[in-house]
Amino acid sequence: MSWLDAISWNDEGMVPAIAQDAATGRVLMTAWINREALELTVREGRAVYWSRSRRRLWRKGEESGHVQTVREIRLDCDGDTILLLVEQRGGIACHTGHYSCLYRRLDEDRWVDVEPVLKDPAAIYENKP
Amino acid sequence: MSWLDAISWNDEGMVPAIAQDAATGRVLMTAWINREALELTVREGRAVYWSRSRRRLWRKGEESGHVQTVREIRLDCDGDTILLLVEQRGGIACHTGHYSCLYRRLDEDRWVDVEPVLKDPAAIYENKP
Repeated sequence: MSWLDAISWNDEGMVPAIAQDAATGRVLMTAWINREALELTVREGRAVYWSRSRRRLWRKGEESGHVQTVREIRLDCDGDTILLLVEQRGGIACHTGHYSCLYRRLDEDRWVDVEPVLKDPAAIYENKP
Repeated sequence: MSWLDAISWNDEGMVPAIAQDAATGRVLMTAWINREALELTVREGRAVYWSRSRRRLWRKGEESGHVQTVREIRLDCDGDTILLLVEQRGGIACHTGHYSCLYRRLDEDRWVDVEPVLKDPAAIYENKP
């Protein structure tokens, strides 16, 4: 049995993947990953996800340069969540220019942006094909 | 607009929630959360999830005693992932008796349990109703 068969893929052949910064421990983002994307992640040593909106493989950083080099891959008890421990190139994981996508904190009854925008998104994607 | 309306609930009215240990930074588990569960999480200060298998609210620790006290709640850029920063009572998040549910690491082409079972699951649930 392949290690890929130990994963409980959902009806669409995907599971959620969490990217965590191996250096800081901060959770950077979540995305979907399918069998092919996970195989490529292992083979290439960089995070490859499945973009549901674009319906294609998404090599994280392919446009932004914010590649995630994968140091370790974990699977949970139920086999339906993947954790990638990564090095985040550029120190920015989010398309908004924040370090982490999880930059909104619940304060009483509202979401507050509690982290700086490190780079203008327009600048991140200026060389986008 | 309620802070709950800022969340992009899926077709089933849920989003994935990640529980991260506020002290160690380790990712403990993921679960589903819906509107009612998240409201209760805030009100009660402890993680309340939606159990899809049992089709009911799940107050984490209700049977095991492994309650998660919530210190902070984060929302991601797309509004479709919640991060709970928690204190894990008993130092065990997983029903298998592991500290974290993410105890399997990919080594070459197999998943290896790389963390100890801290408590026999039979002992965890011996007083289960």
